[in-house]
Amino acid sequence: MELTAKSIAEFLNGKVEGDQEVVVNDVSKIEEGKPGSLTFLANPKYSKYIYTTSASIVIVNDSFVAEKIINSTLIRVEDAYRAFAALLEMYNKNTKKLKGIDPQTHIDKSVVIDESVYVGPFAYIGENARIGKNVQIHPQVFVGDNAEVGDNTILFPGVKVFNNCIVGKDCIIHGGTIIGSDGFGFAPKNQKDYKKVPQIGNVVIEDNVEIGSNSSIDRATMGSTIIRTGVKMDNLVQIAHNVEIGEHTVMASQVGIAGSTKIGKNCMIGGQVGIVNHLTIADEVKIAAQSGVGSSIYEKGAIIQGSPAFNIKEYQKSLVIFKNLPRIQKEIHETSRLVKDFQVLKEDI
Amino acid sequence: MELTAKSIAEFLNGKVEGDQEVVVNDVSKIEEGKPGSLTFLANPKYSKYIYTTSASIVIVNDSFVAEKIINSTLIRVEDAYRAFAALLEMYNKNTKKLKGIDPQTHIDKSVVIDESVYVGPFAYIGENARIGKNVQIHPQVFVGDNAEVGDNTILFPGVKVFNNCIVGKDCIIHGGTIIGSDGFGFAPKNQKDYKKVPQIGNVVIEDNVEIGSNSSIDRATMGSTIIRTGVKMDNLVQIAHNVEIGEHTVMASQVGIAGSTKIGKNCMIGGQVGIVNHLTIADEVKIAAQSGVGSSIYEKGAIIQGSPAFNIKEYQKSLVIFKNLPRIQKEIHETSRLVKDFQVLKEDI
Amino acid sequence: MELTAKSIAEFLNGKVEGDQEVVVNDVSKIEEGKPGSLTFLANPKYSKYIYTTSASIVIVNDSFVAEKIINSTLIRVEDAYRAFAALLEMYNKNTKKLKGIDPQTHIDKSVVIDESVYVGPFAYIGENARIGKNVQIHPQVFVGDNAEVGDNTILFPGVKVFNNCIVGKDCIIHGGTIIGSDGFGFAPKNQKDYKKVPQIGNVVIEDNVEIGSNSSIDRATMGSTIIRTGVKMDNLVQIAHNVEIGEHTVMASQVGIAGSTKIGKNCMIGGQVGIVNHLTIADEVKIAAQSGVGSSIYEKGAIIQGSPAFNIKEYQKSLVIFKNLPRIQKEIHETSRLVKDFQVLKEDI
Repeated sequence: MELTAKSIAEFLNGKVEGDQEVVVNDVSKIEEGKPGSLTFLANPKYSKYIYTTSASIVIVNDSFVAEKIINSTLIRVEDAYRAFAALLEMYNKNTKKLKGIDPQTHIDKSVVIDESVYVGPFAYIGENARIGKNVQIHPQVFVGDNAEVGDNTILFPGVKVFNNCIVGKDCIIHGGTIIGSDGFGFAPKNQKDYKKVPQIGNVVIEDNVEIGSNSSIDRATMGSTIIRTGVKMDNLVQIAHNVEIGEHTVMASQVGIAGSTKIGKNCMIGGQVGIVNHLTIADEVKIAAQSGVGSSIYEKGAIIQGSPAFNIKEYQKSLVIFKNLPRIQKEIHETSRLVKDFQVLKEDI
Repeated sequence: MELTAKSIAEFLNGKVEGDQEVVVNDVSKIEEGKPGSLTFLANPKYSKYIYTTSASIVIVNDSFVAEKIINSTLIRVEDAYRAFAALLEMYNKNTKKLKGIDPQTHIDKSVVIDESVYVGPFAYIGENARIGKNVQIHPQVFVGDNAEVGDNTILFPGVKVFNNCIVGKDCIIHGGTIIGSDGFGFAPKNQKDYKKVPQIGNVVIEDNVEIGSNSSIDRATMGSTIIRTGVKMDNLVQIAHNVEIGEHTVMASQVGIAGSTKIGKNCMIGGQVGIVNHLTIADEVKIAAQSGVGSSIYEKGAIIQGSPAFNIKEYQKSLVIFKNLPRIQKEIHETSRLVKDFQVLKEDI
Repeated sequence: MELTAKSIAEFLNGKVEGDQEVVVNDVSKIEEGKPGSLTFLANPKYSKYIYTTSASIVIVNDSFVAEKIINSTLIRVEDAYRAFAALLEMYNKNTKKLKGIDPQTHIDKSVVIDESVYVGPFAYIGENARIGKNVQIHPQVFVGDNAEVGDNTILFPGVKVFNNCIVGKDCIIHGGTIIGSDGFGFAPKNQKDYKKVPQIGNVVIEDNVEIGSNSSIDRATMGSTIIRTGVKMDNLVQIAHNVEIGEHTVMASQVGIAGSTKIGKNCMIGGQVGIVNHLTIADEVKIAAQSGVGSSIYEKGAIIQGSPAFNIKEYQKSLVIFKNLPRIQKEIHETSRLVKDFQVLKEDI
């Protein structure tokens, strides 16, 4: 694939600054850019590299103001990151198309598979599972009885979708992720022992959801654990039984959400956050990485931090003082000592 | 399955309040209850829903006192959650019985498999592995050489039980969990490099243990990593080499226990807790979610929180003050200022 | 295997104290040592057991000074842990050699496999994958198109190495670990939705790397996510896209490193640590367990703790005061009260 700055700018509806005819045949990171490669600048932290990169073309935001001379050709667009992503997607479409059903598979005879579907070696599809069009079921995937996988969805190697669970259209589930294992429910049997509470619900994943690798999403005790349209979850995330994640909420890796908690729409949840069970989190809430959420957040758009988490600005004020505690303690002790001196004085008076 | 309130009450040894003949054919959550469904009320947080639910029957605790009119028929029992669990279990027994050995498996010729056992497609069973009666080895499971799986145990899809490891009777291991990977043991080889310490021990899981999905339990360097009878572990839990978990201890998801630590009986460990290596935790200790345990806990029944964790009441007192630090700092500065004024005064005197 | 104290001492270049001819045929932990077994003492926490162990031989550090009578024969060496590891390795070499290609595999016809290689049942090797000599590809492993696995590397059951990823020589990847799933990259598509940024880079793992079970290492958006020579990572670790981990860095379980962060050489990272994206961590930095790193660490050899993490000594000073906050608050209030009394006094004067 060889592209000129001019043709890229046309594709992106952008404006060229520099050599319209310069050609690229690769992509690179701005700090590692080589002649013949295309890169982008979106994060201001990387601005310094635009003056030294050898990349032939750099896609930048309209708002970018150069402070020194730049050797590369620039293409100005409204949003450099999104534009670059669109280009990558075009570039990515060269990848080979997976199709056909491998003979070394187990597909129950009750299952109807469209000719557009890929089923890789050592995949298992159980009784009455429903598989949509253009679905990719990669090697070593498990799809249980009565499970459902919507059109265009990709299940990467090793994914398990258990009985009765539903994955919507245009979803991507990355390798090793488990959808529909039993929720963690036990009733005390006597003072020392536990009895398993059967988990007879399922998991419902709506459309356009992406879930990272080696994550665990438990089925509901009854009813459904629900992941709404457009949710994006990173790797090693834990979603307990009966949780509901609202539309377009984004979750970084190693987050854990305990049972029956309901997360709103368009929330952003940082890495390693834990949220306890039976809570409600409002729409558009942002939770800083490693926070622990112990009570419901009803304020839309709240930004919180800490373990337990509270308002991020207040948290950070307390945190600054925490770091200064040794100095503050000294001040307290000195003040107390002075005050005791005064007491002596006072008694003298 | 259609059941009357009367027949359910007989099964549960409970008492009906309302229409003895009302019929249910489904279960539901109390807040989503529909006519014809059965639900329960155990957690007081959900009490408000009992006055509005459309569920035909609600199982409640004997101790429940209604504050308004309830439309549903009630069944009073000693413990509503346990009773409901017992019903679910009955309901659950309709699920199809898995049996037989799929032809697309690898089972070493040295292995004897009872006719009550299920071995699903693409499962692997190594040399001299011992498989008990009624065991379910689901698709894509790995059971290594000389490993042992006790009667009635279920290994869900993708579970790996490595060489020489032992899983007891009546255990459930959920999808993707790894039992017996090498412990993390390295000896510094020179100032900059490490040499692997071979891990020649195993993992021993006793009876009635349930382990969630995508968890990792490492084999011992020598001897055994031991999970005692009745332990319940959630998803994505890390158990390092030579750890021992006492009977009936319960562990929420994403907990990590470092090497050689011994946890007592009947402990309750919250989500995302970390415990460092070579510690001893007494029986019945409770550890709040996200805590970090850096030293042994010898007091039976201690309740701790924080990172590092200490007595939960003291922790929470400190925490309240942490939140108020900005206000307290102000008080200190004002007091100091006043005291300095006095010093001037004192010098005047 | 029967060995005398004398022959072991010769192998380890150590010095016998006690019966040169005593024979061992097993290894044990010092606190569980039985007659006929060999053990070692390295961690001073275990010193007390040397006076009561029934192990026939104990390997100890040259520097060990006995405080009571010891019944076992001692072998003194420079480093008892390393010496014991060397013995275990010898002991371990009795394990059976895996070889040959199982017929129930999927190996693309373009792939050349040396006769020294093991490929277990239900393993998948894609188009143009390159497999080195003496490689062990265990059951249910996935190696994608154009992926590369270096000489002597072991991929344990269930490991997935995705398309175009490279694993070096002498590496060990434990069960269920995913190498090369997509990085977590999304561009806001409109105010409420996200568009996937294709991840067209790969993962490069250099030589002598060991990665624990159920870990996730994402491919780069472009370029490579890089794990340098000699890195050791424990279970359930998350490495995001475009991260680079320096040579011989060691990472305990459940660590999470966010996108594009560069970790130096010979760092030690404790369990459950989180490090945010786009940071630089200097060589030889040590990070205490559960810490959260929110800004770059440029000081070589820095030791940090806390969430957010700072200098460990300062952190621990603050922490001691945190625990004492209730007492300190009292002191402040008393001092303030006294000062107010003085104010009254001052006004009187």
